[in-house]
Amino acid sequence: MTDQSSNAMWGGRFAAGPDAIMEAINASISFDKRLAAQDIAGSRAHAAMLAATGIVEANEAEAMREGLLTVLSEIEAGDFAFSTALEDIHMNVEARLKEIIGPSAGRLHTARSRNDQVATDFRLWVRDQIDAAVEGLDALSRSLLAQAEAGADWVMPGFTHLQTAQPVTWGHHMMAYVEMFQRDASRFRDARARMNECPLGAAALAGTSFPIDREMTAQALGFDRPCANSLDAVSDRDFALEFLSAASICAMHLSRFAEELVIWSSAQFRFVALSDRFSTGSSIMPQKKNPDAAELIRAKIGRIFGANVALMTVMKGLPLAYSKDMQEDKEQVFDAADNLMLALAAMTGMVGDMTANRDALRAAAASGFSTATDLADWLVRELNLPFRDAHHVTGTLVAMAESKGCDLPDLSLADMRSVHEGITEAVFDVLGVENSVASRMSYGGTAPEQVRAQVARWTEKLG
Amino acid sequence: MTDQSSNAMWGGRFAAGPDAIMEAINASISFDKRLAAQDIAGSRAHAAMLAATGIVEANEAEAMREGLLTVLSEIEAGDFAFSTALEDIHMNVEARLKEIIGPSAGRLHTARSRNDQVATDFRLWVRDQIDAAVEGLDALSRSLLAQAEAGADWVMPGFTHLQTAQPVTWGHHMMAYVEMFQRDASRFRDARARMNECPLGAAALAGTSFPIDREMTAQALGFDRPCANSLDAVSDRDFALEFLSAASICAMHLSRFAEELVIWSSAQFRFVALSDRFSTGSSIMPQKKNPDAAELIRAKIGRIFGANVALMTVMKGLPLAYSKDMQEDKEQVFDAADNLMLALAAMTGMVGDMTANRDALRAAAASGFSTATDLADWLVRELNLPFRDAHHVTGTLVAMAESKGCDLPDLSLADMRSVHEGITEAVFDVLGVENSVASRMSYGGTAPEQVRAQVARWTEKLG
Amino acid sequence: MTDQSSNAMWGGRFAAGPDAIMEAINASISFDKRLAAQDIAGSRAHAAMLAATGIVEANEAEAMREGLLTVLSEIEAGDFAFSTALEDIHMNVEARLKEIIGPSAGRLHTARSRNDQVATDFRLWVRDQIDAAVEGLDALSRSLLAQAEAGADWVMPGFTHLQTAQPVTWGHHMMAYVEMFQRDASRFRDARARMNECPLGAAALAGTSFPIDREMTAQALGFDRPCANSLDAVSDRDFALEFLSAASICAMHLSRFAEELVIWSSAQFRFVALSDRFSTGSSIMPQKKNPDAAELIRAKIGRIFGANVALMTVMKGLPLAYSKDMQEDKEQVFDAADNLMLALAAMTGMVGDMTANRDALRAAAASGFSTATDLADWLVRELNLPFRDAHHVTGTLVAMAESKGCDLPDLSLADMRSVHEGITEAVFDVLGVENSVASRMSYGGTAPEQVRAQVARWTEKLG
Amino acid sequence: MTDQSSNAMWGGRFAAGPDAIMEAINASISFDKRLAAQDIAGSRAHAAMLAATGIVEANEAEAMREGLLTVLSEIEAGDFAFSTALEDIHMNVEARLKEIIGPSAGRLHTARSRNDQVATDFRLWVRDQIDAAVEGLDALSRSLLAQAEAGADWVMPGFTHLQTAQPVTWGHHMMAYVEMFQRDASRFRDARARMNECPLGAAALAGTSFPIDREMTAQALGFDRPCANSLDAVSDRDFALEFLSAASICAMHLSRFAEELVIWSSAQFRFVALSDRFSTGSSIMPQKKNPDAAELIRAKIGRIFGANVALMTVMKGLPLAYSKDMQEDKEQVFDAADNLMLALAAMTGMVGDMTANRDALRAAAASGFSTATDLADWLVRELNLPFRDAHHVTGTLVAMAESKGCDLPDLSLADMRSVHEGITEAVFDVLGVENSVASRMSYGGTAPEQVRAQVARWTEKLG
Repeated sequence: MTDQSSNAMWGGRFAAGPDAIMEAINASISFDKRLAAQDIAGSRAHAAMLAATGIVEANEAEAMREGLLTVLSEIEAGDFAFSTALEDIHMNVEARLKEIIGPSAGRLHTARSRNDQVATDFRLWVRDQIDAAVEGLDALSRSLLAQAEAGADWVMPGFTHLQTAQPVTWGHHMMAYVEMFQRDASRFRDARARMNECPLGAAALAGTSFPIDREMTAQALGFDRPCANSLDAVSDRDFALEFLSAASICAMHLSRFAEELVIWSSAQFRFVALSDRFSTGSSIMPQKKNPDAAELIRAKIGRIFGANVALMTVMKGLPLAYSKDMQEDKEQVFDAADNLMLALAAMTGMVGDMTANRDALRAAAASGFSTATDLADWLVRELNLPFRDAHHVTGTLVAMAESKGCDLPDLSLADMRSVHEGITEAVFDVLGVENSVASRMSYGGTAPEQVRAQVARWTEKLG
Repeated sequence: MTDQSSNAMWGGRFAAGPDAIMEAINASISFDKRLAAQDIAGSRAHAAMLAATGIVEANEAEAMREGLLTVLSEIEAGDFAFSTALEDIHMNVEARLKEIIGPSAGRLHTARSRNDQVATDFRLWVRDQIDAAVEGLDALSRSLLAQAEAGADWVMPGFTHLQTAQPVTWGHHMMAYVEMFQRDASRFRDARARMNECPLGAAALAGTSFPIDREMTAQALGFDRPCANSLDAVSDRDFALEFLSAASICAMHLSRFAEELVIWSSAQFRFVALSDRFSTGSSIMPQKKNPDAAELIRAKIGRIFGANVALMTVMKGLPLAYSKDMQEDKEQVFDAADNLMLALAAMTGMVGDMTANRDALRAAAASGFSTATDLADWLVRELNLPFRDAHHVTGTLVAMAESKGCDLPDLSLADMRSVHEGITEAVFDVLGVENSVASRMSYGGTAPEQVRAQVARWTEKLG
Repeated sequence: MTDQSSNAMWGGRFAAGPDAIMEAINASISFDKRLAAQDIAGSRAHAAMLAATGIVEANEAEAMREGLLTVLSEIEAGDFAFSTALEDIHMNVEARLKEIIGPSAGRLHTARSRNDQVATDFRLWVRDQIDAAVEGLDALSRSLLAQAEAGADWVMPGFTHLQTAQPVTWGHHMMAYVEMFQRDASRFRDARARMNECPLGAAALAGTSFPIDREMTAQALGFDRPCANSLDAVSDRDFALEFLSAASICAMHLSRFAEELVIWSSAQFRFVALSDRFSTGSSIMPQKKNPDAAELIRAKIGRIFGANVALMTVMKGLPLAYSKDMQEDKEQVFDAADNLMLALAAMTGMVGDMTANRDALRAAAASGFSTATDLADWLVRELNLPFRDAHHVTGTLVAMAESKGCDLPDLSLADMRSVHEGITEAVFDVLGVENSVASRMSYGGTAPEQVRAQVARWTEKLG
Repeated sequence: MTDQSSNAMWGGRFAAGPDAIMEAINASISFDKRLAAQDIAGSRAHAAMLAATGIVEANEAEAMREGLLTVLSEIEAGDFAFSTALEDIHMNVEARLKEIIGPSAGRLHTARSRNDQVATDFRLWVRDQIDAAVEGLDALSRSLLAQAEAGADWVMPGFTHLQTAQPVTWGHHMMAYVEMFQRDASRFRDARARMNECPLGAAALAGTSFPIDREMTAQALGFDRPCANSLDAVSDRDFALEFLSAASICAMHLSRFAEELVIWSSAQFRFVALSDRFSTGSSIMPQKKNPDAAELIRAKIGRIFGANVALMTVMKGLPLAYSKDMQEDKEQVFDAADNLMLALAAMTGMVGDMTANRDALRAAAASGFSTATDLADWLVRELNLPFRDAHHVTGTLVAMAESKGCDLPDLSLADMRSVHEGITEAVFDVLGVENSVASRMSYGGTAPEQVRAQVARWTEKLG
């Protein structure tokens, strides 16, 4: 393919060709070549519609469709010479098609414009990424379900302020992330439904006088319907921004989990051992395992949300319909999508590989009088003490245990009755971390039975 | 109400009271008092459930519910003395309730924690704002529909790069924003459905051992169901972030329209006259009307998206479950919601009041050979010219018109045939801006007939 | 002061008064009243200059200057009734001045405009905040210096990836933050020097034909010089953005330190005990101390950087000179400044109060074969082993110690020589964490001697 | 160069090699190869210092230094095969050096770590970009000075709210941007001075026990001094953030100017004609010139500020010293720097090429009674009218002119005296736009004489 100047297409008025700076700032082929498959799919659907509506001859359309497949196979084989002078993927494909099928390639552009073409290509690309994100989130959720099922009754500290508050179970903690990642999946699915309208046929911005069939192209490309306003169709980038918003919230969830994994991997916590696959070591401190993957996942929120900020800033205050500013949309979304998929894959692998240190988790859960709330609740429930009185009794018993250097279940009944004489042997049923978690039977609570019910619910949902 | 220290509630261990700095950074009552109505509604639902499940006596619960109504009426009447020492709205309400009904107020906190309480209050508040946003977007859309209906066939320039590209209609341009604002409404509705789960009953983070009925409280507060994981219930702020994301995209649409109104109001464009209500003047240049409201609306994307950045940054890397960092969530959402509602109201008023300058719009649309595309399309469609040939002929005719100082429809048929002899009298049917727009009959195109169909569709939808 | 409508000032053309929405979106007095002192200082300087240049009579100017002091004292005493109808602080002050000194108050506005007035007021306010930030950073640095001096030789782990890498000293760690916070101070000082130019005299945007003396007003207000371009003077908000940028980087440093304090306060680390002043407790778990202040400080980067994003977004794409969008500048800067100062004060207090747990720090530093690097360096330095060989020998010795359940200094010389026979008794001089840190004598290294040198250097600098 | 696994260097403990996902997320060579020249310069300085201090033999160091030059020439010639398995630029260079000079290459890593190495490389790279930015800003300023000098007395409208407020001059408007871009340059220079400290010698984080000379390496690399705290040296990314902050503010200025150029290029304004070089055309509407370069420059603030957000988010809450999250720093800065330089170059070219439409500018300036302020000021100055009275007289005269369909200077003296009898013939000296701008002689005002003084001042400064 020759690298002839696309400038010729603008006619003869421009005495001076765009120089190197202009080419550098203006050409998009270096990145929008990633839209090649979508561009060709869109053009093939358009060609079929042009034939069906009699706008071009059936055999011409067939030649275009065949020629486009040839171009696609050249690109997929790496045999395609992209030209910067031809600026973008659309003109690169069209110029090559012309070489293959001759001047009738020009008719492909009937009733179409680069504005609706790029809007269509980019939507198709983003739609694919949404599907990939949902798939990645489901895979990650399955990894978490496996951890949750195995550890439905493993006791660990439930933290507030990174201080042990109450015992919870490993399974319960894992299921909290299933909730988050499945909310993410639902957010992506809503975005997909909203954006699944076809811009093709909006032409430059006003629609066209050719008797096109927009339903036909929309259907051929898997869209639910054509966009209902041609100005909006070419100036809308909501689908990209909504993808970035959903990706940012998802990256936030990933950052929280990654932070926990980094902290849990520290020598001080030792709650979890990451696999060698997702750590790196030190040549001289062989016991050291750095949670590199977790740290990199934690960082991805930066570039993904940065992309969201970037595109939002670009779109601020742009008059309708198309402005060249909008060419800055693609690199942001490409980078965010790539990094989201990578982070999801790495997290899925890491969760699948990691090993909980059950002893350390239990020991941490049992320290710090973590069942004081259970004791107070027992006093309220069984002895009908007012809330504040129950707290006072509990605080006194905790202070007693602290001074004796033992935990609450280690106090004798006599000790307890010295503080409040209504206390009975039954109180020991709620002390101790296993009793504590087992008692939290409210819906969505940390009791192993509740956790297993949630695991079952999600397992069924995720197939 | 006395301003006694809430510190007493933490027991006796803290020798030093929190000093002024700590109080300043820690207390939230200065802003979370906006949650009063939600807090009281949540507590009333909780009290009813405690009675229904036998956790408290029916008459005690009734006293709480009555007492809470008294507190609410005091707050609404402005008779309530908020105390910073009591830190937040929850403790302010509870302390006052105790004054009213006595120590049994303490039982209200059974099977509940500040963590699930604040999560519930804030969700209720955000849910109300979503409803308000949808209402505001519908009102704005109706304003736009009225403009679109009136001006379905008023011709104006369709811009790309702020250069006239093709004629469109005023109605078509207005309807582009109806598409945007109704996508916003649909985004808010999806967010509402996703967040409409009740955190109440998650307690501090692990659920509770009291035999509570979470379905009952969820239903009483209008939630679809209780949250399925208690850790997630207290550590989730997705609902706030998704609200901010949707608000940001909406603010971006507002900024685009506001930018157009500012440009259209300039002496150079004169496309539109804003009403005196939404402009400000100059004491010495009485003809000057500054589009202040449009500029302020344009700017709102800054603080709304800034709030989104702020909360996303706060949430980055927070371990489960509750961390105090999350107290920074409310002010951002309050400010963003207030400003979104204000911007929607101002834009609705401005759209309702503004007057299109039909003459200026038409004159601008008719300049710059804006129907050149129509001519080229005619050559393709009627004479079956290849696309590039049609462009060459058109370019030559435009150059001819330019040199004669006239527009395309002003050329004679002879002039035209001197460039391509196949051209017939029929060509004049597509030249001229009215013909041009009337011909764009593709679905979603700018033809008045298409615009009216969209107006009818949306009018029916919006009731 | 009467709440008469300022609308009267715009002349009679506006049939409709601005209604409630417009007032709500347009008026700035609810927040810009914080500029009262700056506004009055600016007006007093302007009045003096008007007299000095003969533009107004000396006695008139004196009356203005006296009257303005009266207004200031009313505002400071809380006796001033701000009027929303008068829109902003400038008109509120001017209207009150007129009540006090009569119609000659109007002459104060000679050779001035609200545009240069607000630019001047806001610069003065931001300049004060810069001074406050530098003061706050110096105070925080002094707190850190005290900690560093006390703990110049307390050994603690130096982390990479939150894994112990090498021993460092407490003092060294504290001094790392002194470097950061003093870079922040230097950044604020640079911003101050750059912004210290006076907009007054730029008038609306073009300068004025009155024979004003801009040097005089600049000097009176402590500016280094007048702004050199009147258009730039009224449309520039760089000083606000640069303040926000510097504040954001500072908040990032605070977030890093706060994160460490949260982790260090956990039961698993126990590196530090925060004072009761800056923690909160639990009524039933008296041993629990939540690092609320640290968490809130960590979160402040959200709203401070959010403000930066907000104002940057507002300024994007604004044509010269003044647009009403710029009215959104102040609330962002006010909120960011308030929160920065609060975070600095809280951090200073927390650092002053906190107690390092020397035993826990040392024990953590000594675990994990943290002096393996010292051993390898010794092999390179003393035995001239190639780097990779030294690493191999070290790795083998670490594995040996690991299998014996001891640390490196606990191995016998014989053990060591069994791996490399060149090893001598002298090796024990670099093993052990005290030896390790003492040996890091390179400039800026963690050796107590180096740390004390840096403490001395900064103590002298900070006075 | 062979693509052998770097994993070998971590010793034998890792049973499983990092798989494809880990390699994808972990390896940085795909982007950090841009640091090759800086990495080699740093290593060469380090080698020379190792010899000077006797840590390695002089001939060994010389071999390293020569070998490194060979590696550099291979990279510059494109003959270097970068290996992903070797992860980063440091290990790629080191492995190749070993191939060239043998095992003594390993000694280069004495008293150094990847942590201080990457910090040094990246600082050097950012420092170069600061220099390039300053150069670009100076070039752009010179382009603006040329425009300002040519058009020091061309009258154009000074806008507020995109409404004509007062006449200014083309030169004055251009000089406003010189102020902005030179503030940007000064901001970059301050950042350079602050960051110009050398991390080399901080080693992993604690400094080193080798007797290195940090002053020597600092000096060799053009740094002012070594960093004073080794922990800070390896964990600090302020220099990158400050670069991004300064770049963001600069990009904001570019966006404002670009916005003006887009608006000024519209058919409605026609204030300026951009050159063909920096516009694109339409094949069928040859008169159409789209300001693509201006739009793309306007958009660059998105990705540059997005990068700032990204890195700030990454750094939030990172404990000291090095965390792998920080690897995300480089791509953001690379992309922002590339786009800033491109935008500056394109803007410089565009300003150099553009042609002001003097007639359109003057006509716009003269419309809308733009000298009403001048009239009011004259009444105050010459007739000593109170400000508000002067405004009233002026408003009445403007209304009179409006009703007569003429401009203020077209009113007769009799007309004027019918409104205020004190008005004299002299009033006409300030009416008319040329008189108006000439009268604005205050320092920094729009009078051509003032503009020329500023042009002269900056021309001298910029050499």
